[in-house]
Amino acid sequence: MENAILKKIGYDAGNIASDGNRFLCANGYMGMRGIPEEDGSGQYAAVTLAGVYDRYRDRWREPVNAPHGLSVRLSFDGASMTPASAETVRHETALDYRYGLLSRDTDYGPLSLHSERFLSMADCHLMADCLRIRIRRDGMLEIRAGIPDDIWDINGPHLFDKQYQAGRILCCEAVTGEKRITVATAQHAVPAFAVEETYETGKGGVFRVWRKQVRSGEELALSVFAGVYTSLDRGDCKAAAEETCLNAGKKGFDACLREHMQAWDAIRDRSEMVLEGDGAAALALRASQYHLNCIAPRHAGSMSIPARGLSGQTYKGAVFWDAEIFYFPMFVHTQPEIARSLLAYRIETLPGALKKAAEYGFRGAFYAWESQEGGEEGCTNFNVVDVFTHRPVRTYFRDKQIHISADIVYALRSYYEITGDRSLLENGGAEVILECARFYLNRSNAHLDRDDVDYDDVIGPDEYHERVSNNAFTNRMIRHCLESALRLEEIFTDRRGWFEALLKKLAYEADWERLGTLIQRIRGPVIRGGVIEQFDGYFGLEDCSLETVRARLCHPKEYWGGDHGVAGTTQIIKQADVIAMIALFPGDFTDEEADANWAYYEPRTEHGSSLSSCMYALTACRTGRLDEAWDLFLRTASIDVTGGGKQWAGEIYIGGTHPAANGGAWMIAALGFAGLRVVRGEAELHPRLPRQITRLSFPFTAKGKQLQAEITHHHAVIRPR
Amino acid sequence: MENAILKKIGYDAGNIASDGNRFLCANGYMGMRGIPEEDGSGQYAAVTLAGVYDRYRDRWREPVNAPHGLSVRLSFDGASMTPASAETVRHETALDYRYGLLSRDTDYGPLSLHSERFLSMADCHLMADCLRIRIRRDGMLEIRAGIPDDIWDINGPHLFDKQYQAGRILCCEAVTGEKRITVATAQHAVPAFAVEETYETGKGGVFRVWRKQVRSGEELALSVFAGVYTSLDRGDCKAAAEETCLNAGKKGFDACLREHMQAWDAIRDRSEMVLEGDGAAALALRASQYHLNCIAPRHAGSMSIPARGLSGQTYKGAVFWDAEIFYFPMFVHTQPEIARSLLAYRIETLPGALKKAAEYGFRGAFYAWESQEGGEEGCTNFNVVDVFTHRPVRTYFRDKQIHISADIVYALRSYYEITGDRSLLENGGAEVILECARFYLNRSNAHLDRDDVDYDDVIGPDEYHERVSNNAFTNRMIRHCLESALRLEEIFTDRRGWFEALLKKLAYEADWERLGTLIQRIRGPVIRGGVIEQFDGYFGLEDCSLETVRARLCHPKEYWGGDHGVAGTTQIIKQADVIAMIALFPGDFTDEEADANWAYYEPRTEHGSSLSSCMYALTACRTGRLDEAWDLFLRTASIDVTGGGKQWAGEIYIGGTHPAANGGAWMIAALGFAGLRVVRGEAELHPRLPRQITRLSFPFTAKGKQLQAEITHHHAVIRPR
Repeated sequence: MENAILKKIGYDAGNIASDGNRFLCANGYMGMRGIPEEDGSGQYAAVTLAGVYDRYRDRWREPVNAPHGLSVRLSFDGASMTPASAETVRHETALDYRYGLLSRDTDYGPLSLHSERFLSMADCHLMADCLRIRIRRDGMLEIRAGIPDDIWDINGPHLFDKQYQAGRILCCEAVTGEKRITVATAQHAVPAFAVEETYETGKGGVFRVWRKQVRSGEELALSVFAGVYTSLDRGDCKAAAEETCLNAGKKGFDACLREHMQAWDAIRDRSEMVLEGDGAAALALRASQYHLNCIAPRHAGSMSIPARGLSGQTYKGAVFWDAEIFYFPMFVHTQPEIARSLLAYRIETLPGALKKAAEYGFRGAFYAWESQEGGEEGCTNFNVVDVFTHRPVRTYFRDKQIHISADIVYALRSYYEITGDRSLLENGGAEVILECARFYLNRSNAHLDRDDVDYDDVIGPDEYHERVSNNAFTNRMIRHCLESALRLEEIFTDRRGWFEALLKKLAYEADWERLGTLIQRIRGPVIRGGVIEQFDGYFGLEDCSLETVRARLCHPKEYWGGDHGVAGTTQIIKQADVIAMIALFPGDFTDEEADANWAYYEPRTEHGSSLSSCMYALTACRTGRLDEAWDLFLRTASIDVTGGGKQWAGEIYIGGTHPAANGGAWMIAALGFAGLRVVRGEAELHPRLPRQITRLSFPFTAKGKQLQAEITHHHAVIRPR
Repeated sequence: MENAILKKIGYDAGNIASDGNRFLCANGYMGMRGIPEEDGSGQYAAVTLAGVYDRYRDRWREPVNAPHGLSVRLSFDGASMTPASAETVRHETALDYRYGLLSRDTDYGPLSLHSERFLSMADCHLMADCLRIRIRRDGMLEIRAGIPDDIWDINGPHLFDKQYQAGRILCCEAVTGEKRITVATAQHAVPAFAVEETYETGKGGVFRVWRKQVRSGEELALSVFAGVYTSLDRGDCKAAAEETCLNAGKKGFDACLREHMQAWDAIRDRSEMVLEGDGAAALALRASQYHLNCIAPRHAGSMSIPARGLSGQTYKGAVFWDAEIFYFPMFVHTQPEIARSLLAYRIETLPGALKKAAEYGFRGAFYAWESQEGGEEGCTNFNVVDVFTHRPVRTYFRDKQIHISADIVYALRSYYEITGDRSLLENGGAEVILECARFYLNRSNAHLDRDDVDYDDVIGPDEYHERVSNNAFTNRMIRHCLESALRLEEIFTDRRGWFEALLKKLAYEADWERLGTLIQRIRGPVIRGGVIEQFDGYFGLEDCSLETVRARLCHPKEYWGGDHGVAGTTQIIKQADVIAMIALFPGDFTDEEADANWAYYEPRTEHGSSLSSCMYALTACRTGRLDEAWDLFLRTASIDVTGGGKQWAGEIYIGGTHPAANGGAWMIAALGFAGLRVVRGEAELHPRLPRQITRLSFPFTAKGKQLQAEITHHHAVIRPR
């Protein structure tokens, strides 16, 4: 089907890291990098588990990669067949974005291999692979399918005390070092031909070995199933993993695939956008939706999504503000139960946020900048490695990026406004809002000789400028947080007793009175010629072009930010900051104001983060800069089609998929091009369709109603489904 | 005379920069680096003018070096005679610390040269040199005495439109680029032998040339006089410079020297310490006193002293807190008119401090961290150059080292307490105190939900840790500043009307009320096991040894401080910080408390600043750590004898003399070893004489009385003089 399949011809060893991301398969529970079955850790093979973390020694905590259950290696007449070898005649990879179905076709000369694999959306513990080998020459074929002891880890190893089990079901069971979590991968393989099976177990892992004299023209098919469980899922995870692949084997590959596709059909029915008029854009939009849908935590009632999804261990597998500001909108508008899970994760991790605030001497809730399980802060004080000295650099993301708490409140409030569902607020959400507001109350700086209240020493979305005062975005988000706290009284006007008891339980009476004062006094931004100053003193920084700044780099991987970075002392910013504020609070600004800020900041923005273009595009839509919006949309939507985005921050690898951009693509299309606005449950369209699009159609929900938006250049309608 | 002369045998080309500092001649108006007459800018020859600054293009503003009036070059039979050449048989330099008399003796083989020179303490515009040439072989001698166009500038050039005048009096007149200040150097030379004089003028400068056929055994003597004036001194500065050297020529070298020595005798009579028991220490102490006395602004009623004195353009020739905290004590106790001049400079530059505060959005007076004429801030936002990228590094000395205003108030109040002289306060001093207090009021951070007032985002004396909160030293100094402001009411209790009018003039009524509240609320330091935390979170920094930190250096010149520096993220500090507070507020702490802090911080201190050892020594004296105090005293006092101290901060040259250490040596001896305390004009001794000293004797003044302190291990007395 056109515009649904990403294809790549050839085996591109130089871009294997990036291709592993582009061809990712995932099902929310785990992600498998999109590389051939034959490849291993040297090619960044990984099965990354959602929400399972481990720390090795004093290295960064990061998600655990499970032993790989779909490893298959071939040799013919004693020669190993690998796609990387020079003898390989042809190699082709294709990912069907509709179903997360990854196929590959390799012509090794004496034989060719075709496979189709998926991580089941029907059973998140299952992965399955169907391989077809076509023989072109008589000879001895050897197939080794197993679970190799070859795990790609950035800050590992994480799995210890590995127990291998050979037999009809292979199994590798191991425990993590820090928390002794058991991880079990089991493998079952079903050949559609007669062959004798032997086993090898040793330091290299556990394998089943099939050796067979084959004839030219022969075609051999086999299915491989793997089951993955951890002790966080079930106590007897080994048995569960074995059972999963055994049952799948009984059911057969095709039946498993059918269930998987049905699950995807249901997902797409609720979320799939149709964009007509530009094939490349349609593919990119589909890719974005695939990548965000495939990592959504459908299996868990309280889980969020890491900044690089399930494409590996980058960014410590941690949850950032991306979750609330960039992924959340698509989910809350299309699959609110997922949005709910993202927020439930924050409610569940409130104790971590209270603890972090206390660590810094503050009251209230200061959420982790890089949140791992239990809200544990994954962000260290040294988050970049200097390329010149190879020494860790003190960064301030952990301690100064205080907008994170307000970002969570922003999403909590949106959830209520869009779904009309108050239950999240009742079940911990109100407490989160109140504790976040309390943090901002406590973190504010007032003065003995004037009324202004400042937020000093913060970092806004633009991380290149550390430790600034009165970041306009941060101050505005804080004001929204405080208003949301006060708004609770109105939301729970029919449950006054309950709400008062909550305030009392939180010893909130005195703070409640102070919130009103604080809102009045928060310093507003400096505005010059209609342009909002990003933070105090920003306009005084060196005003030079992006090219000038880039030309000052002494090393291609050096970090741009902080006082040592080339951008830190200039007006060049990493990503949307003032423009992010305008995108999140469109009602605060006239179109003229929005446009003046867009015109000022866009040329000064490196777009060094995949979080940037979407905010610029949203604002460009409303001010009629549709050509710019279209370009930014393409840039945002295609990032995981092309494998773009930065791969390095200093000496730290930051590659992977870009869920924030994926979510951003949906936001640009739905909230920008279609102009969808759901206000207190009522949906409206204010379309700004670029000329390149002839038709845009997508399902969404508002206050429980299932709706469909249809926009062309002639009409825009919302109809029930 | 023993213990009064610094000698060096040999010409040490590798240490010429350091030797130029060690053998410095100066008279407060100007300083001449102690290198041979034959040397030029390649050997860092310089005549640095006090208080005359210039900026070239966008480089750093720095003091202007005048054309060199004592340049003499010899050649014999056409061969140039320079101390650096391999043929030189012997070279010796000696500086008599009693009189700032620099002599040198060079045996070139065919001839030898002896000279004696000084910068007159009797007429600060005059320098004189008496040269004796002894001939050892017949031949043709050429002497070129003149004013070369060869000026060592770090961030120059600064002199333009040079006009040379040849004739009996040579002259170079030029103007500075920025402010068009005229600088005139005139030279007169008087041979004691018959010779014909010709002149050369050109791009190389202006010279008188004497050529003479000489015989072995002949001895030739000549005197060279130079006069230096700028248009800041007199409109007709060229005429004045000519007159100065012409008159000196008439008077003769010996008469000029006599007047100069009498002036030094008078200075030493009021300030000279006698230390007996250790010859090296006595020499070092004398060196310290020489170096501080020779740069004191005796010619000006309102002038201060740069951090590297008059030894060159290092540190932009700017005045730091060194002036009030490190030089001021010796002067206020021995020559209060100089202490008064230092403070008058601060009173005069109050407008600069008001302007700087306003620049940062604050009310009140925020003094320049690196103060140039008129209080102009010489400190830039980029005060260090990174050794790896060669890019300027954003440093925060300028904007965050807020204790500077309180340091000035500390000295103003000491001046009043020790001299009993209220007139400085009446003539602008009270205004300075009030405006500094106002700055701290305005700069403070209060809170809506608690009483604490914080000083966030500051740098204390330990500059390696930038942008910290509640630096104990800073907060204590601020409290002292506020108390000093409130104390004015009592000091002027007999001039209530005048004082109230002052408050009114300054629109101070509302602020006055707030000062009392503020004093009550300033956050006190965290104390753990008796140890005061240097700033919020200091105890949480990596606690490792100085050796560990040093071992992390990747480059010998790399800057230790800031977030990128090896020290910035550890507990290793550059210089006394908590200990400086204890030394300045001894009454706040018991001896046990002082000692606990000494024991904690001393091993964590790099002593990377010459301001450090003195504070540690003062505290060591009171707690009876006399061996440590003695070592620190020697380190402090001998810095300009040995030419020690750091030469580089990143890629910036920071060499020169160390007036702060020079003043520190006096402080250790007088305030530490002798335990001199002048409380409201009454002097007391609390001696803590190290065993290495048998006798310490020194003059001082208190409330106008001339006194002499005499301390041995058996007695300690103060007697009138």
